[in-house]
Amino acid sequence: MAGKISPSMMCADFRRLEDQVRELEQAGVEYLHWDIMDGRFVPNFTLGPDLMNCVRELTAIPFDLHLMMERPEDHLHLFDIRPGDIVSVHQESTTHLQRTLQAIRERGAKAAVALNPATPVYTVEHVLDDIDVLLIMTVNPGFAGQKLVPATLKKLSNVKTYLAAQGYPDIEIEVDGNVSWENAVRMREAGADIFVAGTSSIFRKGENIQELTKQFRDCIA
Amino acid sequence: MAGKISPSMMCADFRRLEDQVRELEQAGVEYLHWDIMDGRFVPNFTLGPDLMNCVRELTAIPFDLHLMMERPEDHLHLFDIRPGDIVSVHQESTTHLQRTLQAIRERGAKAAVALNPATPVYTVEHVLDDIDVLLIMTVNPGFAGQKLVPATLKKLSNVKTYLAAQGYPDIEIEVDGNVSWENAVRMREAGADIFVAGTSSIFRKGENIQELTKQFRDCIA
Amino acid sequence: MAGKISPSMMCADFRRLEDQVRELEQAGVEYLHWDIMDGRFVPNFTLGPDLMNCVRELTAIPFDLHLMMERPEDHLHLFDIRPGDIVSVHQESTTHLQRTLQAIRERGAKAAVALNPATPVYTVEHVLDDIDVLLIMTVNPGFAGQKLVPATLKKLSNVKTYLAAQGYPDIEIEVDGNVSWENAVRMREAGADIFVAGTSSIFRKGENIQELTKQFRDCIA
Amino acid sequence: MAGKISPSMMCADFRRLEDQVRELEQAGVEYLHWDIMDGRFVPNFTLGPDLMNCVRELTAIPFDLHLMMERPEDHLHLFDIRPGDIVSVHQESTTHLQRTLQAIRERGAKAAVALNPATPVYTVEHVLDDIDVLLIMTVNPGFAGQKLVPATLKKLSNVKTYLAAQGYPDIEIEVDGNVSWENAVRMREAGADIFVAGTSSIFRKGENIQELTKQFRDCIA
Amino acid sequence: MAGKISPSMMCADFRRLEDQVRELEQAGVEYLHWDIMDGRFVPNFTLGPDLMNCVRELTAIPFDLHLMMERPEDHLHLFDIRPGDIVSVHQESTTHLQRTLQAIRERGAKAAVALNPATPVYTVEHVLDDIDVLLIMTVNPGFAGQKLVPATLKKLSNVKTYLAAQGYPDIEIEVDGNVSWENAVRMREAGADIFVAGTSSIFRKGENIQELTKQFRDCIA
Amino acid sequence: MAGKISPSMMCADFRRLEDQVRELEQAGVEYLHWDIMDGRFVPNFTLGPDLMNCVRELTAIPFDLHLMMERPEDHLHLFDIRPGDIVSVHQESTTHLQRTLQAIRERGAKAAVALNPATPVYTVEHVLDDIDVLLIMTVNPGFAGQKLVPATLKKLSNVKTYLAAQGYPDIEIEVDGNVSWENAVRMREAGADIFVAGTSSIFRKGENIQELTKQFRDCIA
Repeated sequence: MAGKISPSMMCADFRRLEDQVRELEQAGVEYLHWDIMDGRFVPNFTLGPDLMNCVRELTAIPFDLHLMMERPEDHLHLFDIRPGDIVSVHQESTTHLQRTLQAIRERGAKAAVALNPATPVYTVEHVLDDIDVLLIMTVNPGFAGQKLVPATLKKLSNVKTYLAAQGYPDIEIEVDGNVSWENAVRMREAGADIFVAGTSSIFRKGENIQELTKQFRDCIA
Repeated sequence: MAGKISPSMMCADFRRLEDQVRELEQAGVEYLHWDIMDGRFVPNFTLGPDLMNCVRELTAIPFDLHLMMERPEDHLHLFDIRPGDIVSVHQESTTHLQRTLQAIRERGAKAAVALNPATPVYTVEHVLDDIDVLLIMTVNPGFAGQKLVPATLKKLSNVKTYLAAQGYPDIEIEVDGNVSWENAVRMREAGADIFVAGTSSIFRKGENIQELTKQFRDCIA
Repeated sequence: MAGKISPSMMCADFRRLEDQVRELEQAGVEYLHWDIMDGRFVPNFTLGPDLMNCVRELTAIPFDLHLMMERPEDHLHLFDIRPGDIVSVHQESTTHLQRTLQAIRERGAKAAVALNPATPVYTVEHVLDDIDVLLIMTVNPGFAGQKLVPATLKKLSNVKTYLAAQGYPDIEIEVDGNVSWENAVRMREAGADIFVAGTSSIFRKGENIQELTKQFRDCIA
Repeated sequence: MAGKISPSMMCADFRRLEDQVRELEQAGVEYLHWDIMDGRFVPNFTLGPDLMNCVRELTAIPFDLHLMMERPEDHLHLFDIRPGDIVSVHQESTTHLQRTLQAIRERGAKAAVALNPATPVYTVEHVLDDIDVLLIMTVNPGFAGQKLVPATLKKLSNVKTYLAAQGYPDIEIEVDGNVSWENAVRMREAGADIFVAGTSSIFRKGENIQELTKQFRDCIA
Repeated sequence: MAGKISPSMMCADFRRLEDQVRELEQAGVEYLHWDIMDGRFVPNFTLGPDLMNCVRELTAIPFDLHLMMERPEDHLHLFDIRPGDIVSVHQESTTHLQRTLQAIRERGAKAAVALNPATPVYTVEHVLDDIDVLLIMTVNPGFAGQKLVPATLKKLSNVKTYLAAQGYPDIEIEVDGNVSWENAVRMREAGADIFVAGTSSIFRKGENIQELTKQFRDCIA
Repeated sequence: MAGKISPSMMCADFRRLEDQVRELEQAGVEYLHWDIMDGRFVPNFTLGPDLMNCVRELTAIPFDLHLMMERPEDHLHLFDIRPGDIVSVHQESTTHLQRTLQAIRERGAKAAVALNPATPVYTVEHVLDDIDVLLIMTVNPGFAGQKLVPATLKKLSNVKTYLAAQGYPDIEIEVDGNVSWENAVRMREAGADIFVAGTSSIFRKGENIQELTKQFRDCIA
């Protein structure tokens, strides 16, 4: 199965979002990745439902929501979640992980758990039935442009092995954080399926998104 | 002194933000109003520093930051605050109100306190030396498109009188929440100086921002 | 207008609740008072929706819900609120007091603000349009059987005067905390309209509720 | 060893609690299970110490307290804990799990850790010396009448094996959540010792508790 | 009545605390002021019960505890509070202010409320019966060596007048924050009774505490 | 490699800290251990930056900071961290463990993770690259003078084995909590490298620190 691309919209050129979305459509990306931050679970703020709704009107590309917030179960109702979307919640952010994942699926979307670099994969052992995607953070969440945490590559390989051993080879592995062309190759080898692409790959000032995406896709073939 | 306009950027058409900013420049608005929400002090998420920084590159219009978050003092460092900007923090959001206002002024900006509809003005009695602007919420913060809380109009008149009586006639009064053309007239009469303009005035689908702004300016003359 | 009685159900004999409710019906009480505690806004736990729903099936006496919890706006949906009920939220418990009161009225109930002994009445100045009842705590909330905080009697008189002066003579004043026969007389004189009756008046082991209620009603005539 | 029954008192008919307790005594249940909720660790409120104290006067059946609250160590003092009782605290609810369990034993009760469906059993590896019971939630806690989380049955088997392998075969396993007659059989096979019985087994409107309990006991023989 | 001195022990020379205490005894100070911080209500950490207990063994000078922490009612039990001591809790730090003050008096100490620079005095209207001292912060709490917030001097005068007008002329007014010799004179004129003396008055490297205290006492005569 | 000693400064005789530090220097201890508590992550308060800075002026012995607080990443800036120091943060206290450890190293110090008695060692699997020291709490943190939690000795042996098996034999193991002479011997055998020495070993009223330290060093040879 070929690798999928989920461009990080917090890295897009907000001045001309419609153009950016058109280019991403042309480039054939599989998802649009949205980071939602509460300033507390992560030390930053980014985007919100209004901006996302605005883009929904422009395109049918499925959304890939990454909820970086405490108690995501209290906030799901704010978002226009649709079948085909991915919604990720952090293992570290809720004491009701299974219930929250179930609530996401009940709204028709694919459910995902996100893991911070320090969080072991066996913390999700009992929700493997409840997820479609496992999101491995390869930087500490909160900011674009951070450097890869090297230990996350080894973790990624272990995750791939672990999922197969547990009988869940179909859970897709998503990677988020400094997914540069170089790193993407190594992540692909380590088992990543979905790649959050940001400033270190397809969003570069003055360069063409379609062209960059094409090259990026070669890295994750 | 003529009324000033601070368009609420969470109501802008995000698909083509550069165009929107150009139109707002042409229309001669005094500020760009940015709502930053943490999902906890208010039950929603909106925008963040990246998007704001992107617009800074486009225009010299001063920014009007409205920090709707718990403990804003912990988050000030995230924002590129500049001389001429307004930065508002909520009275209800911090136990160190004076220190936070002082920190804003130390960064060169105008300091403001925001008050929720239920919060009395005398809660800010001891920080009148520390503020340039008093922001009166005329809806409960968190969402665009809400209906005016009627009691806030009476509150607005009292605030005007109160500031004069305390010896601070130069503190500007800003209003935020359902500032429609109709309401703006009454708010102006009640003493408002700065008007946060959103979906009920200058941002209307399919209509021209410059034209609407011109008409809105007549309301607050 | 005669005083109204709202028996505190946390003081009832839980062993035979149906009988207790029948006796209260016979005694003609106007409300049933339910204390809901979160162990954090107040340092105790009491009752919840299941128990209340069970009593709803038994009687048509309106409910008087006293929400002693942080962020009551997040929990309103748990309760079966009906027209004729009173729902009280604490001024100290939410930063969105006006919105929360509005939400209560939208569900058909009478909205009330509760004030802890230390909280001044002018904190509710801007929500007088939004309330039907003002609940004055005469003990610090959390436990049955506490002694009256003497200063609350003086506060009660001031509240009565204040409401009239502000043009809201029809807002009813409710008192909660050590409403003994003796204290009830003084509270009535000071302006109370609704009396939360507990272990110091109508709920006494081995005594008859109807008889005690009759005597209590004389105190608040 | 035969299975033990711990009827969930939040499912009892509160209108006539004394009768219910008498019936449970006749039925020979081993415990009375009390759910205490704070509206924050779990999204609901239920019962509290007053109601429990009231039942203590009626019966000598040991209590089985299930503390569904943040920082249970701050609230233990509210409860009349007695020798023979079980007190459960959630692994997810405190950073001082060992200290809290120790405090429970110091008060003479059996200490238990409760695990939400998503929480792995190895999180309690270092407190196996400190517990008498391990409570496996088979639904996400907060509400009666929820459907079984299927993955918890597999977890249950693993727990049984794990405890034996670690050298703690005497720790009893309690199950809570949709313990219907059908599910109870499978739970028994998977190693459960104590069964929290609610609306899906012994508390059914219009049916006889003793009769239902007798049938339920057959399921867990 | 002469002004009283309460040296801020966080400004003492910790290397030789016994000597410092002896000098303060010789200097005849009325209290020893202890700042206890939780890193959350104020953004710093300072001292704790162990250090205080150690000094108790050295001297009979009454202690003046300033609890700068959220929910002080949860932490009172940590401190060895004695008759003659003052214990201050912040108005901004608890929703159960009256109960907390009452708990302090029940332990034999004088109860005090502390007010941050931005907090109005009328927030304590209903606890005037419950306090012996009102502590006016003249800087934002958290750090030694900060500059005076000028508006607090005006506030101080108003407080003096307010207490007299309310019928509580005997409540002592304490000031804390940049109580330099110069400022102390103005604070004395504005009505202060107890002066927290720190690095800007009696604790100066290489200078004699007794001598400095003598001079300071002249300022507040 | 010989065992290292890190005297717990909260157990020192605060009345004459300079003397104590001199004695510790003479005794040749490797670190000075500082417990910083927030009253929330642990139920106590102890020391703060001012006191530590005061001791820095006296000695070049490296500091061993033990941050017992929620969200330590928000408070690192308060401390004068130097090369050669150890800084410990609790695994249970932050959702950004890797980022926090990295921030400590960027300030030149050795980074450490602390584990409460109940916390398994595999929770730190993915930060082994980021730490120099692993701190195993052998009591529940918060108070001096507590009794050893027996299960922590077994845990200690497992930790030693685990680190070697993972390929990190050079990570030093620190023990904190009732490190008496007796227990120290067993901890040494189980693999401990750094010993936090308190009231049960080198700080005893009326005894000589140097002498006690010498004897203690024999225990951990």
